[in-house]
Amino acid sequence: MVQSGKTSREIGASRRIYLSLRDQITSGVYAAGDRLPSSRALADELGVSRTTVTAAYDQLISEGYIQVRQGAKPTVTADGRPSYARSVPPTREITPQLSAYASRAMALPKHISADQAMLQYDFRYGDVASSDFPKLAWRRALNAAVLAHRERLGYEHPAGNLALRQTLQGYLWRARGIECDVAQIVIVSGSQQALDLCARVLVDDGGRVVLEEPCYAMARNVMLATGADPIAIPCDKDGMDTSRLPDPKGVALAFVTPSHQFPLGGVLPSGRRKALIEWAVAGNTYIIEDDYDGEYRYDVRPIPPLWMTGQDRVIYVGTVSKTLSPTLRLGYMVLPDTLVEPFVRCKQITDRHSASFEQEGLASMIETGAYESHVRKMRRLNAERRAIFLKAMADAFGDEVEIVGTSAGLHVVVWFNRIAASDEERFADCARQEGIGIYPISRLFAAPTDQRAGFIFGYASMPVTLIGKGVDHLASAYRSRLRLD
Amino acid sequence: MVQSGKTSREIGASRRIYLSLRDQITSGVYAAGDRLPSSRALADELGVSRTTVTAAYDQLISEGYIQVRQGAKPTVTADGRPSYARSVPPTREITPQLSAYASRAMALPKHISADQAMLQYDFRYGDVASSDFPKLAWRRALNAAVLAHRERLGYEHPAGNLALRQTLQGYLWRARGIECDVAQIVIVSGSQQALDLCARVLVDDGGRVVLEEPCYAMARNVMLATGADPIAIPCDKDGMDTSRLPDPKGVALAFVTPSHQFPLGGVLPSGRRKALIEWAVAGNTYIIEDDYDGEYRYDVRPIPPLWMTGQDRVIYVGTVSKTLSPTLRLGYMVLPDTLVEPFVRCKQITDRHSASFEQEGLASMIETGAYESHVRKMRRLNAERRAIFLKAMADAFGDEVEIVGTSAGLHVVVWFNRIAASDEERFADCARQEGIGIYPISRLFAAPTDQRAGFIFGYASMPVTLIGKGVDHLASAYRSRLRLD
Repeated sequence: MVQSGKTSREIGASRRIYLSLRDQITSGVYAAGDRLPSSRALADELGVSRTTVTAAYDQLISEGYIQVRQGAKPTVTADGRPSYARSVPPTREITPQLSAYASRAMALPKHISADQAMLQYDFRYGDVASSDFPKLAWRRALNAAVLAHRERLGYEHPAGNLALRQTLQGYLWRARGIECDVAQIVIVSGSQQALDLCARVLVDDGGRVVLEEPCYAMARNVMLATGADPIAIPCDKDGMDTSRLPDPKGVALAFVTPSHQFPLGGVLPSGRRKALIEWAVAGNTYIIEDDYDGEYRYDVRPIPPLWMTGQDRVIYVGTVSKTLSPTLRLGYMVLPDTLVEPFVRCKQITDRHSASFEQEGLASMIETGAYESHVRKMRRLNAERRAIFLKAMADAFGDEVEIVGTSAGLHVVVWFNRIAASDEERFADCARQEGIGIYPISRLFAAPTDQRAGFIFGYASMPVTLIGKGVDHLASAYRSRLRLD
Repeated sequence: MVQSGKTSREIGASRRIYLSLRDQITSGVYAAGDRLPSSRALADELGVSRTTVTAAYDQLISEGYIQVRQGAKPTVTADGRPSYARSVPPTREITPQLSAYASRAMALPKHISADQAMLQYDFRYGDVASSDFPKLAWRRALNAAVLAHRERLGYEHPAGNLALRQTLQGYLWRARGIECDVAQIVIVSGSQQALDLCARVLVDDGGRVVLEEPCYAMARNVMLATGADPIAIPCDKDGMDTSRLPDPKGVALAFVTPSHQFPLGGVLPSGRRKALIEWAVAGNTYIIEDDYDGEYRYDVRPIPPLWMTGQDRVIYVGTVSKTLSPTLRLGYMVLPDTLVEPFVRCKQITDRHSASFEQEGLASMIETGAYESHVRKMRRLNAERRAIFLKAMADAFGDEVEIVGTSAGLHVVVWFNRIAASDEERFADCARQEGIGIYPISRLFAAPTDQRAGFIFGYASMPVTLIGKGVDHLASAYRSRLRLD
């Protein structure tokens, strides 16, 4: 029975009758087994139409407060009388039975969250400048996606929008030399989801995984929450020291950042690349190549990804977080053939697929060339930020600091020769009080070894005009701290 | 060193030198230990600047092909010579070592995917009509989000955008009578992610979970992939038969659709609601209340959610998939206090947070009232679709079918009295060949019991003008099939 012909006034009257009767039942005015007036009698009494009362009764029936037997008056059900007040003690006093996964997640160090106070000079890595975002181009691409003609709106393929995967295939070839089938590309909600899916598909509780030391914290967190047993392989100025890899047998996967080790900035040389691939082949082990900032290499040309050498062993992960914005939550994976189906299935169980309009918007930006022209612009802008930052640091600190990882990416690591590693957090707090955000590197080590304090400085979100000032302020804080010591 | 001052011509020359030398190294023209010319000598020879050669050499060094010792000529490294061709056999011949999770996911029946052929009359449940989507309002809301002033673009709080959570708090109160704190609301990428997070946070491999019988397939899939031991509780016309619940001790959670059982359409009466909550309290068990189509109730008013009765035990899950579009991937959870932190942490590990612009767009639509006015319009439109569908079915099939679940939602279940349950898939195939999509209900049962064939008919994506025609075509297919039997 369609009720769409009812006026809002009739609905209001039904609602009032329903609420009034419900209250009378729950408060005990009507007890279990009591009879309510017939719908005709109540309609006459209230001066409303019979359908108005019937609608209220139907609602009470559907919620189980009353029941009607053929031809009889409605009676209050025996099990009725729910109370909508909190009827159980607040769970604050109850310990929830969490899964092993959630218990491990709760034990992780709390990750820097977005709700921290705004700082005047924030060298937080991972953020990008709002002014760099191509608002008009993105709006145009998104509008086209929203207004595009469609037969129907339904769940998309879990691997992602086909147009996006096709344009990405070309982009990956042009930008990174990757030759792959469209079927090997899976769109994800940011590279974080790619890492999480890798853990789901390849790692069991207790499984062994190789991580870099130091390591991207959110990659380690994924593995620790999964219950993996992490093996930290030290990194030097050339990235992971592959001579220290364990026996690959029984190792589920290795997580590496070969283009620009995070955070130290080393570029994995060809010998180590070869060793890593051979190691993975020997162990039937997979390698996650997180190419998180592969677009930002300022000299000559980007290095061919590890994927090129060992595509049957390597899961390539890319993202638009550093070229467009981390808030978009768009990333992509290039998978070995045999892993495509397991990843697609797990992606579908996880969240069906990533947001369609944003996928189509990115496809359209790549298609029109707007994306690559934006990437070039960003490379220039960030090269400028980097140059200003390095010059300001050299002027302010001279040889009191050592700066590493300067050839690529959107951050560097600065070692302070005269601050002890144990003072890292204190110095970061002290800088924070001056409105400067710097981020201790020890947090990224399973077991820190350096005697000096080190900090990650991201510059991609800093207005060019503030970088020098931020460094100068930091230098003042540094000098007064040294005087105090 | 900043290279931004280099001209593209110089970069081109560097690139050519780099490629040429790289080829000579990998092809063996230069062997390990061989010396390359000094940068000055090579620059003279090629008639380019020395920095052009240096840039090419730097690239070769960073990739590990050559090394330079102080003052000496560059030499080819011992471990150089990578080959960028596929150097290992394709993994097609290798069986990947999948996790237990992925192995279970692979064993699930393949879920209907989006890449099926387009049908003329598709009663697929879950889709919505593209023409119903409020393109202009959504575009306006999204544009405002993209153009809004921001200091920087960084990761948001994993629980979601604060403005959205605040407007949702009001919406949930107005539309569903839910009174909760903003802190209890977590934004997710569609209700699928909510179900997946529930499994992550609360269910271990081997954990017991209560499911409805029949059950929403993607909810069961989440639990099966997690390794849970599902307990199927039969549903009748009033939803789950709570008298058949098992001992709650050791049961991690129960998944229910109390407003409109999926797919049978029953509304859980108050007595069963009370029993379910008491059961959960007794076992320290959580209940997922999937309110997937709570906005679509055509008589009187929506039923208060289960959450109202037992908010300390109930995880409320809502979505905009049925009011706006399933392609947006936006949903929300209202959590018991003690579960907020575990869910927020697991959400962060999973994908950091859901896409920001879409969250802000929804916030703005709710804020301006555009969302609720759209929901009202959709309720009218779908009531009309439902009425047309039911009338067409009555005209075409009379008492040869039984239709259930008509009081709410965007679908009904139709039992065909003269088709055997064992013929369901065959009849669906036969309809499909006539361009009609109908979806067998047996797929949603752990163990089907009905003797008759049943199908889910979704009507929300059908143009009003096609519904009657679709039913007529189905009736022809049905008659000719009966003749054949």
